[in-house]
Amino acid sequence: MKLSTRHLLGIKDLTREDIELILSTAQQFKEVLQRPVKKVPSLRDVTVVNLFFENSTRTRMSFELAEKRLSADTLNFSASASSVKKGETLLDTVNNILSMKVDMVVMRHSASGAPHFLARHINAAVINAGDGINEHPTQALLDAYSMMEKFGSLQGLKVAILGDIMHSRVALSNIYLLTKMGAEVTIAGPPTLIPKYIEEALNVRVEYHIKKALQWCDVANVLRIQLERQNQPLFSSLREYNLVYGISRSVLDSLGKEIVIMHPGPINRGVELDSDVADGPYSIILNQVENGVAVRMACLYLLSGKND
Amino acid sequence: MKLSTRHLLGIKDLTREDIELILSTAQQFKEVLQRPVKKVPSLRDVTVVNLFFENSTRTRMSFELAEKRLSADTLNFSASASSVKKGETLLDTVNNILSMKVDMVVMRHSASGAPHFLARHINAAVINAGDGINEHPTQALLDAYSMMEKFGSLQGLKVAILGDIMHSRVALSNIYLLTKMGAEVTIAGPPTLIPKYIEEALNVRVEYHIKKALQWCDVANVLRIQLERQNQPLFSSLREYNLVYGISRSVLDSLGKEIVIMHPGPINRGVELDSDVADGPYSIILNQVENGVAVRMACLYLLSGKND
Amino acid sequence: MKLSTRHLLGIKDLTREDIELILSTAQQFKEVLQRPVKKVPSLRDVTVVNLFFENSTRTRMSFELAEKRLSADTLNFSASASSVKKGETLLDTVNNILSMKVDMVVMRHSASGAPHFLARHINAAVINAGDGINEHPTQALLDAYSMMEKFGSLQGLKVAILGDIMHSRVALSNIYLLTKMGAEVTIAGPPTLIPKYIEEALNVRVEYHIKKALQWCDVANVLRIQLERQNQPLFSSLREYNLVYGISRSVLDSLGKEIVIMHPGPINRGVELDSDVADGPYSIILNQVENGVAVRMACLYLLSGKND
Repeated sequence: MKLSTRHLLGIKDLTREDIELILSTAQQFKEVLQRPVKKVPSLRDVTVVNLFFENSTRTRMSFELAEKRLSADTLNFSASASSVKKGETLLDTVNNILSMKVDMVVMRHSASGAPHFLARHINAAVINAGDGINEHPTQALLDAYSMMEKFGSLQGLKVAILGDIMHSRVALSNIYLLTKMGAEVTIAGPPTLIPKYIEEALNVRVEYHIKKALQWCDVANVLRIQLERQNQPLFSSLREYNLVYGISRSVLDSLGKEIVIMHPGPINRGVELDSDVADGPYSIILNQVENGVAVRMACLYLLSGKND
Repeated sequence: MKLSTRHLLGIKDLTREDIELILSTAQQFKEVLQRPVKKVPSLRDVTVVNLFFENSTRTRMSFELAEKRLSADTLNFSASASSVKKGETLLDTVNNILSMKVDMVVMRHSASGAPHFLARHINAAVINAGDGINEHPTQALLDAYSMMEKFGSLQGLKVAILGDIMHSRVALSNIYLLTKMGAEVTIAGPPTLIPKYIEEALNVRVEYHIKKALQWCDVANVLRIQLERQNQPLFSSLREYNLVYGISRSVLDSLGKEIVIMHPGPINRGVELDSDVADGPYSIILNQVENGVAVRMACLYLLSGKND
Repeated sequence: MKLSTRHLLGIKDLTREDIELILSTAQQFKEVLQRPVKKVPSLRDVTVVNLFFENSTRTRMSFELAEKRLSADTLNFSASASSVKKGETLLDTVNNILSMKVDMVVMRHSASGAPHFLARHINAAVINAGDGINEHPTQALLDAYSMMEKFGSLQGLKVAILGDIMHSRVALSNIYLLTKMGAEVTIAGPPTLIPKYIEEALNVRVEYHIKKALQWCDVANVLRIQLERQNQPLFSSLREYNLVYGISRSVLDSLGKEIVIMHPGPINRGVELDSDVADGPYSIILNQVENGVAVRMACLYLLSGKND
């Protein structure tokens, strides 16, 4: 079985069969990760460059661990240590990577479309690890894996995505994936942080009242407030955001039903999520982190050409 | 033979037998490091994360080299490139590492107790690479190894620890180790930099007159002045510190006996130690650096579970 | 066949036979890099430390890739994460690396002569990856490799080196190499950026009129304007530099002959080189990047002692 694409740039480009292949391959790698010896030789002799133009502990570590579990060689490049400071253009960075003949590139960049630009110009397989406010496809795939692990299927699952939808690549990738896979999606959050066109464009429902969204859903995927992506502060304080849009234990207790809580991390504790919710019995946040390694192993393996 | 502990958080927690096991295992690895091929397969398939929340060339390089000599896979994380800047809590960092199922973590942190917090929450073995003003156990172990290499035994050895005792995790770990192993310890330095309780609490002698301490001892372990850890300057100038507490060649020549000079590095040349002392015939400072790799290999190996 | 030197500190120290050996060995590694499996076991069990005291994406990545293609273990140290900030001297850095018994060191430093200082004090083989305004030998070797690939031989080849000669280690290493190998060299650029003694000292011609140099040459190696190395701005604007000394398509079209364009990167597009020249048909800039990996593999291999 092969993916229909040479790169993983966004969920938008994947077929339902692609998504199913990635998730079933991830299942096999998750079994590997539960053995005492977690390393497999699948990507021996493959060199992967992790090209991070934005800071990230969680995502870079998850990718690097996935690469090492697969026996790949890894090179790490971060913006702060790079020629970017010398004014090199993205085109020249791209050209250098092309010329050095690396096999795969994992790229995070603050500009939407940067990995697509890279993929058009190089032979190596490109994996988007987050591009601006566009997509973060491996996050959506690990979210989907975690939901399937909990519920068995995405078909008909009711998923609420809560928070700053406007600036969230996690939200967009999740919406693409969930609607392709037959889940129902409701978007909820402050009106100023929800794009106007979204209902018609993306086949989701919009709900401005957080509690109504929670009462409707099976799973709430609570987004991180991306303060660094907002041009102007939208709330007089984070405390105010917490009071109106934060998820507390008392809100969950008042629902009269159990829902599953997800978060892509890093959590702003006490802002979008209270600690007793993040660490509570219905949170699968740490399962998401764990599944991230298996899902990224699957993406790397399927795009490496080693399974042809 | 096994250690009595699953983690290496401090010398305080080790038994005399633990220390002897680490030092004798280090001896075996030191022999390996003198061969043309210095690499052994002991930690093949083991993943070690080096989690450094404070800068360090020497200690991180020594650990990373030890890990690679043991054939472990390594991941490096430093605070400046991490989610710490995004406001993630230590608890969330810990949880992520737990969920990613790494095998071992080497941690340096400016907060005393941070590695203990990590160890309480994750399954991986944790090695403390320095926590605040608490402990730096691998430094004390490599210091002990270097003294044993020179003198054959620690029993009855007279060790003076000189300088800023108050802020030194190296001093505290050395005191725990040396007193457990039967050495005699004298602390010397400016009165303002020596904690008041230390004689009774830790079974050491205090001497405010540096030259008297030097005349008494077999070995002087000269600490780095940790300017960055002091809330206020205690001397009008580093030159003044050098004049009163610095070790010069002329001071050593005036003792009428030979003593061995140690320093954990990096040296402030011309402050706590003059260059002709640091580079002189009685200095074993570079032996300390060399032994650090073998001692860290021993700690990693013994805590990996691979010797069960 | 062996090199006449234990270190690669500068082209100045190499014999013509050394250069030929490196270039012919690079040819063999270039063939390896065109296979599907690009990794060879030549440096298995060898540990290489990449010690970069100046930022560099291209050079560090090229070296690290070369090391990994040769199966070496690599450790990376950059100034910003190092003890340099704590005030450690170069001597102490050197001593630590000596004591840790690494096998090879690749060093970039802003001080001319820093790798030579290192090489005098340690047993490991040292490769200079650029020292101040002195030399950048692997750049000159990859430039030579790329010219030989294009022209078959350096003997009698007419090479113009254009731009800021005064501050360029690339220029100096290229001049040493090209004159040793029988090429003719003309230096061209602003009079203030060309050292006065250079004609007599280095056996090159000087030409202040860029177009005359272009009309004479077979190859133009266009240097990066090293704004960060100049004490004072020499042009009222980069636009002015571009108008007088920049290479545009129209200048090339006016020559009535074809010349090959090289650049060590990163390119200041629109300053010393217009984009339609950098990306045009006569540019071999990306071949230079590609050849850099093979040339560095050759240098590492020949200095490792593994070919004895």
